[in-house]
Amino acid sequence: MVIDFQLHAEDSTSAARAGVLRLPLKSGVGAEIQTPMFMPVGTVGTVKGLTPGDLRAIGTQILLGNTYHLYLRPGHERVERLGGLGKFMAWEGPILTDSGGFQVFSLSSLNRIEEKGVEFRSHLDGSKHFFSPELSMQIQRSLESDIVMAFDQCPALPSPREAIEKAVRRTQAWAERGLAVPLKPHQARFGIIQGGTDRELRTQSAKGLTALPFDGFAIGGLSVGEPPEVMHEMARFSAPLLPKDRPRYLMGVGRPEDLVEGVRAGIDLFDCVMPTRNARNGQLFTSRGKINIKNQRYQEDQGPVDPECSCETCRTYTRAYLRHLFVAGEYLSIRLNSIHNLAYYLKIMSDMRMAILEHRFDLWTKEFYAKQRGGLETSPD
Amino acid sequence: MVIDFQLHAEDSTSAARAGVLRLPLKSGVGAEIQTPMFMPVGTVGTVKGLTPGDLRAIGTQILLGNTYHLYLRPGHERVERLGGLGKFMAWEGPILTDSGGFQVFSLSSLNRIEEKGVEFRSHLDGSKHFFSPELSMQIQRSLESDIVMAFDQCPALPSPREAIEKAVRRTQAWAERGLAVPLKPHQARFGIIQGGTDRELRTQSAKGLTALPFDGFAIGGLSVGEPPEVMHEMARFSAPLLPKDRPRYLMGVGRPEDLVEGVRAGIDLFDCVMPTRNARNGQLFTSRGKINIKNQRYQEDQGPVDPECSCETCRTYTRAYLRHLFVAGEYLSIRLNSIHNLAYYLKIMSDMRMAILEHRFDLWTKEFYAKQRGGLETSPD
Repeated sequence: MVIDFQLHAEDSTSAARAGVLRLPLKSGVGAEIQTPMFMPVGTVGTVKGLTPGDLRAIGTQILLGNTYHLYLRPGHERVERLGGLGKFMAWEGPILTDSGGFQVFSLSSLNRIEEKGVEFRSHLDGSKHFFSPELSMQIQRSLESDIVMAFDQCPALPSPREAIEKAVRRTQAWAERGLAVPLKPHQARFGIIQGGTDRELRTQSAKGLTALPFDGFAIGGLSVGEPPEVMHEMARFSAPLLPKDRPRYLMGVGRPEDLVEGVRAGIDLFDCVMPTRNARNGQLFTSRGKINIKNQRYQEDQGPVDPECSCETCRTYTRAYLRHLFVAGEYLSIRLNSIHNLAYYLKIMSDMRMAILEHRFDLWTKEFYAKQRGGLETSPD
Repeated sequence: MVIDFQLHAEDSTSAARAGVLRLPLKSGVGAEIQTPMFMPVGTVGTVKGLTPGDLRAIGTQILLGNTYHLYLRPGHERVERLGGLGKFMAWEGPILTDSGGFQVFSLSSLNRIEEKGVEFRSHLDGSKHFFSPELSMQIQRSLESDIVMAFDQCPALPSPREAIEKAVRRTQAWAERGLAVPLKPHQARFGIIQGGTDRELRTQSAKGLTALPFDGFAIGGLSVGEPPEVMHEMARFSAPLLPKDRPRYLMGVGRPEDLVEGVRAGIDLFDCVMPTRNARNGQLFTSRGKINIKNQRYQEDQGPVDPECSCETCRTYTRAYLRHLFVAGEYLSIRLNSIHNLAYYLKIMSDMRMAILEHRFDLWTKEFYAKQRGGLETSPD
């Protein structure tokens, strides 16, 4: 085992748990991740608009990098020659890389899936490429991430049962093939279970994957088209199928309430582009619900985005200024909005962790929803 | 007089001078500007992509704000209700606002100039507006900038002598009308001389303007189409026409070598969008000349942009990473490139100031040009 994972508290009213995940890092210095934790997404070697300094300032403990994007540009071999992804982007903390599986299905055109792997065309220039479980491992080895994800097949929902079943079988075979590819000594491996919203297939996938020597396990194939309640239910069903003493990661999730439900289900790690993507669209998350900063009502509002937030954006700028930057199409808007949204996400994670450690998570959850319901404005997703 | 301007050293081989310009600021705290100084341009309430913290970190002592842009969006009355431009954008240092004159001629369409003022259409939505010298003062009063520029008429070059002569007469009349509009107690006023490249008209304009009670004087109407050598020559000719004991400002200038020639001509203040605009296009200024960061030769270059620079960008990131960000179209590229280019501009200003104070400015100038000529690559402007 490359990682060390210790649980420090468990909630008595839900499956929530608080722990510490230790990773050795390439440097050997080691890093601790306080779980449950959210991972900001740094798609192409940067969390859009932000520096490592910004990310540290808001409490980021681990970043996610996208294998598919980095393979296409600047190329994993180049990243390796430049010292690995962390050194390349000047981020000294841990990095988790996804396998590229989700992206070759969702972003690229004309993908063809066969047992050997997936043929796809680049979303950048239409050029033809082929990803296999082995190549995904080799790319992630070159990127030198700290947590390497198995190459899985992730069908959109809804899909016919046969398609989900086939993806479960293939994901298992691909996981086994990936394990045969050696990684660097500091790199941990996580397996991914599939199975859509089918309990039998989820159980089968979890049984197969957890029999393999992975350092942690992810629940994949959710948040891909199904209603949020179904996703929550499947997270609650799937988490206990995974070993209690290994970190559990719910991929691509989600909205703040999805993080809360995920933590209640016993999940330790999350990632999602929502805080940064919505920031770019002017949607800001606050302790009182979402606001759209472009709204005219903010044009002379001298308050901070969220009075309960202590991020650089809330400490320094008014809603009126942030609205102006958004309306004027200024780059600074993206940066300041992204800082706030990520700070908000990381804050609710650390608040949840404290509440679990102090055995008041049920109360915290109730207060969270009560405050969200009394939100500043009702805005569509 | 609102300002206090002290000269601390004069170069014996040129008209260069080093001094300190003190401004009271609205807060009464006061601010010192070490001259010669370059002013980063914050067009619409932000230096594109940068925060006040970034600007302070690279040694910015005064910002320029654009009256035309801020009048259109978010509107000067709104800025005033929000506490003035400095408070609005969270910049605590001094701000100089231009008069909007240059922009209504260059940016807007269908402008019609008459004695009363200028009718123009907004570059944003085509709406019709009218700027007079009086309104320009009122707008700048609402913006609460620390240095207010007179509303002038700036013809492009080349223009017929009659057009330049007319602009000189009008600029004089408009300056006088502007002086009749009261400002806030902390606001200093600068007059602007015109006259194109005509020595007689420059002399006439300087004589007329310097008879008026301005705190400082700007040389306008240059860097608007004439060759750089002509611009330098006109700066050398015009600077001595302005009182020695007041700050001199060469508007809209320029390239690093133009700053050097301007300082040699006896100029104290400069502004230009070049460092930030070129940063967005991937052109970076260095002690060894310009480089285009998109150039393939940098794709695995692990050195900093400029080994002699100590800005955040050069301290933290490689050329390879900056090239990747530019090629991938990432927002962070704009930010990191802008930080470096502005840091470079501010560094050559402070280097020139030290060289003047230490009576070695002639040697410094020779070394500056020698290093620039032995540049890293030759790239077109």
